[in-house]
Amino acid sequence: MDKKQSALQEKKGVSQPETTNSMSAEKIKLNRAKQNSVNEFVSKILEGDIPFLSRAITLVESTNTKHQKKANEILERCLPYANNSVRIGITGVPGVGKSTFIEAYGKFLTNQGKKVAVLAVDPSSSVNKGAILGDKTRMEQLVTDKNAFIRPSASGSSLGGVAQKTRETIILCEAAGFDTILIETVGVGQSETLVHSMVDFFLLLKLSGAGNELQGIKRGIIEMADAIVINKADGDNEKNAKIAKVEFNRALHLYPLKENNWQPKVLTASALNKINIDKVDEMINSYISLTKENNYFNLKRKTQNKYWLLATIEQQLKDNFYNNPVVKKALSEEIENLEIGKTTPFNAAKRLLNM
Amino acid sequence: MDKKQSALQEKKGVSQPETTNSMSAEKIKLNRAKQNSVNEFVSKILEGDIPFLSRAITLVESTNTKHQKKANEILERCLPYANNSVRIGITGVPGVGKSTFIEAYGKFLTNQGKKVAVLAVDPSSSVNKGAILGDKTRMEQLVTDKNAFIRPSASGSSLGGVAQKTRETIILCEAAGFDTILIETVGVGQSETLVHSMVDFFLLLKLSGAGNELQGIKRGIIEMADAIVINKADGDNEKNAKIAKVEFNRALHLYPLKENNWQPKVLTASALNKINIDKVDEMINSYISLTKENNYFNLKRKTQNKYWLLATIEQQLKDNFYNNPVVKKALSEEIENLEIGKTTPFNAAKRLLNM
Repeated sequence: MDKKQSALQEKKGVSQPETTNSMSAEKIKLNRAKQNSVNEFVSKILEGDIPFLSRAITLVESTNTKHQKKANEILERCLPYANNSVRIGITGVPGVGKSTFIEAYGKFLTNQGKKVAVLAVDPSSSVNKGAILGDKTRMEQLVTDKNAFIRPSASGSSLGGVAQKTRETIILCEAAGFDTILIETVGVGQSETLVHSMVDFFLLLKLSGAGNELQGIKRGIIEMADAIVINKADGDNEKNAKIAKVEFNRALHLYPLKENNWQPKVLTASALNKINIDKVDEMINSYISLTKENNYFNLKRKTQNKYWLLATIEQQLKDNFYNNPVVKKALSEEIENLEIGKTTPFNAAKRLLNM
Repeated sequence: MDKKQSALQEKKGVSQPETTNSMSAEKIKLNRAKQNSVNEFVSKILEGDIPFLSRAITLVESTNTKHQKKANEILERCLPYANNSVRIGITGVPGVGKSTFIEAYGKFLTNQGKKVAVLAVDPSSSVNKGAILGDKTRMEQLVTDKNAFIRPSASGSSLGGVAQKTRETIILCEAAGFDTILIETVGVGQSETLVHSMVDFFLLLKLSGAGNELQGIKRGIIEMADAIVINKADGDNEKNAKIAKVEFNRALHLYPLKENNWQPKVLTASALNKINIDKVDEMINSYISLTKENNYFNLKRKTQNKYWLLATIEQQLKDNFYNNPVVKKALSEEIENLEIGKTTPFNAAKRLLNM
């Protein structure tokens, strides 16, 4: 049995019917993970051993305290070997061709001898099982590529939790020798912001439409993008894609240059026909060169680390407060008082905090 | 001595040299405030008594726990009489003519029989004494207008604290019968976001330049604005102002319609020559009519109340945590560990939270 496939089958996407099989596979995996020491994990991961990498990720994703403790030890031991990759975030609405693009770009990279890990942050995975990247059949070529590792989105009780697990998974993948990390997300809720805060380069995939491209675009997303790639620029669509390119370029120029001195770019591409995939890669490389030269690359990673430290603390403080049953009850009462104008937000806050 | 002037002199702006006088005036005010009961305060404020309104605001701004307690009682008693105003936020960089605009618009409103309160949220007031609206000589006409009340920015240890006091001051002014509240802020730090979250209508003042108007504009501000008014559109400037109007209009149309169905507008005006001030008023009225009709007006105020409740709680939780001396020391150590790659943000956060 192919190891890459077995790793993927640990978590099934919503596109496949849920079976009891995936749960028992999970259990077996965790049992197996128990038998290996932290030392074994670390040395195997550093060798690039995919089943061990996969099991370590399962530990990271586990809600079991013992597993988490073990995962943390593995993570800290792997850290000195991490960080040597290019992390690329890829976002776009469903239907824009994210999977096709990731497969095309992933294959382009592995053909050049690179090792590519594909991860995902899926907002829906905080409610049910992960949807994106769950359907592995969509990346037939990449799945069977021994230099590619595909892992569907973790699931968790909150989107922040899902993102945290993905961020830890990046470290493990880097320690296992993957030099390019592609992180997919769908444009829902805060998922883009979270992915943006864990990658070096953030790419927005778009389709060309019938003009007025910017109407309906999500607020803030243009400002986050280091590049916009207009996908499906093939056949009859090519003309529209060129028009869209002009319009997006104009929108990007409305904003002042980012502090990294990078002027966000717009490209057209066809992932299906493998057109301009090389241009996308060229562009990303020139971004990496520029930001490594002006030290923004390292600076951004440091800032991201600090961001995640503070974000984790603050999320935990809030969770502890709001999940307290006494506070929960009082909060809904205070909100009612607010709505009927019986108190001010500040008095209500004071009473809640004094509890 | 004119009461309006006396109220203003309680806090002096940085544009006037600091004297010991302002501190002792403050003390006298607070002593006087002690002598009046909450009942007296409330009934006087509801009568529209300016010295009592002014003293109540001084209580709101006081850091003394007893004063705060009294202020909270007054606020909760005033609440049923508040909320009947239009709250307008006005922002723009220094030099754009905010004071002149506020004076022109304020006079326009009082000439129509309206009662106008002018407040400010000044980021610099969290460091030193308030700068904006401190120079009352800039609003000579409005200062002597008995239907206008001008109060410089509160000062405080944090911008959030300054904003909170302003928000409470709005309630007192409304209870005192002011039907239009103008809140000035300068485009620094988070001050615009904070003012945006306490007003019904958010107006951005701009100057026309030599084209390329949008270069250098602060990120996110265009999205917050319900209208952009290009000020100083007079004399030689008129032509440039018209060009700028076209460019800003285009930028505003890049964004999807807001959920209130309002398409943000661009106007040119000259506050100095009182040109188009009536048009600005017309526009704001049409916004208020629209949003009252589609219920967005009330919805927004409710959302803002809830926002301030949660923001206050979360700020306090963070303050309590980060101001703990043990945490402070450990945090800087963990940040060092992060920077040299010795730990992950999540492990560091866990250790800090377990302390």
